[in-house]
Amino acid sequence: MPDATTTIDDLKAVVRQFAAVRKWEPYHSPKNLAMALASEVGELLEPFRWLTCEESREIVNDPVQREAIADELADVTTLLMHLSNHTGIDLSEALRQKMIKNEVKYPPPA
Amino acid sequence: MPDATTTIDDLKAVVRQFAAVRKWEPYHSPKNLAMALASEVGELLEPFRWLTCEESREIVNDPVQREAIADELADVTTLLMHLSNHTGIDLSEALRQKMIKNEVKYPPPA
Amino acid sequence: MPDATTTIDDLKAVVRQFAAVRKWEPYHSPKNLAMALASEVGELLEPFRWLTCEESREIVNDPVQREAIADELADVTTLLMHLSNHTGIDLSEALRQKMIKNEVKYPPPA
Amino acid sequence: MPDATTTIDDLKAVVRQFAAVRKWEPYHSPKNLAMALASEVGELLEPFRWLTCEESREIVNDPVQREAIADELADVTTLLMHLSNHTGIDLSEALRQKMIKNEVKYPPPA
Repeated sequence: MPDATTTIDDLKAVVRQFAAVRKWEPYHSPKNLAMALASEVGELLEPFRWLTCEESREIVNDPVQREAIADELADVTTLLMHLSNHTGIDLSEALRQKMIKNEVKYPPPA
Repeated sequence: MPDATTTIDDLKAVVRQFAAVRKWEPYHSPKNLAMALASEVGELLEPFRWLTCEESREIVNDPVQREAIADELADVTTLLMHLSNHTGIDLSEALRQKMIKNEVKYPPPA
Repeated sequence: MPDATTTIDDLKAVVRQFAAVRKWEPYHSPKNLAMALASEVGELLEPFRWLTCEESREIVNDPVQREAIADELADVTTLLMHLSNHTGIDLSEALRQKMIKNEVKYPPPA
Repeated sequence: MPDATTTIDDLKAVVRQFAAVRKWEPYHSPKNLAMALASEVGELLEPFRWLTCEESREIVNDPVQREAIADELADVTTLLMHLSNHTGIDLSEALRQKMIKNEVKYPPPA
């Protein structure tokens, strides 16, 4: 079930279920989740920090590095889904609303 | 089109199209995108930093605060979708693979 | 009073005094301060995110950009000093202890 | 040599020397250093993310946790000193200039 057929709600259900079984919900306040998200993003930055922009495009072709980066992207995705679950904010609606604002802020070139 | 019916690929197409029209792809190396993601997460943290965990649960009920937080979640989502587009890493697959590892790392209570 | 003659304790006293006058100490738990630090670092990242490494070296020569970056470095410094004040961890000692570990982790070239 | 007698320039010299011996300067563009700082701050957040504010005040009394947090504060301090070295921005001056702005932004209570 890749990105082509997986809905945002599918991923939100996966992480909700994982946390519920472990009784982690009491820890999942928006404050704590935002902090955990920042921590995971810090881990995502780590393999890229000393690379040039060009090198950062190539690193994902190395199978070991690719799996490490995929794991970090998965952790970031997990926290983002938890934040959606625990704030009740629909990510798809939020993104589309923000895009309308961005269209005004960054008008397309003529 | 809410999270219930929006696929990850739908969101990836929205942000890809937005960037393509503005010819932003040359800037979208994984390094730059990871850095931009960290910057947006910093903005998401801002409204929560001086709140208690309890207060952070309630702040999303205030309409003005809710829209501001939704905008920040949208920015984080946008960068995550760009990172998926530019690394070729499928977020749904990455999350499911990571969950298998997490099942071992955090076994469910007996 | 530049960096040449300013001690770490001098800066710690400046930020302690600023917070005390405003009665901000109750908000300055290590958790909140770490979160605020991450938020300020996010702002520091912002001007650099789409630049090449070379461009990031030159941007500080522009007076307007330089002042903006100096302001962000000041905010990061402020939070770091608050963290030292509120954890009682001496930054100079911590840095020197960590350097001893780093000497082992990253031995100097022969 | 604790914070009471260590100047900012002392710490800047320690980290400059450490990097020079290892010939790391070519990697130390402001962009890379800012990214590394964000990564280290992510590690600092980690022990605090699931704690209440009260618990975050107590965790530093545990010797093992205290050393881990001291190490993370040392890493953050190291990157901040590198950023000062490589931008030529004096942290003490920057902090004092920012405090003048903050006095206006957050006037003291009457």
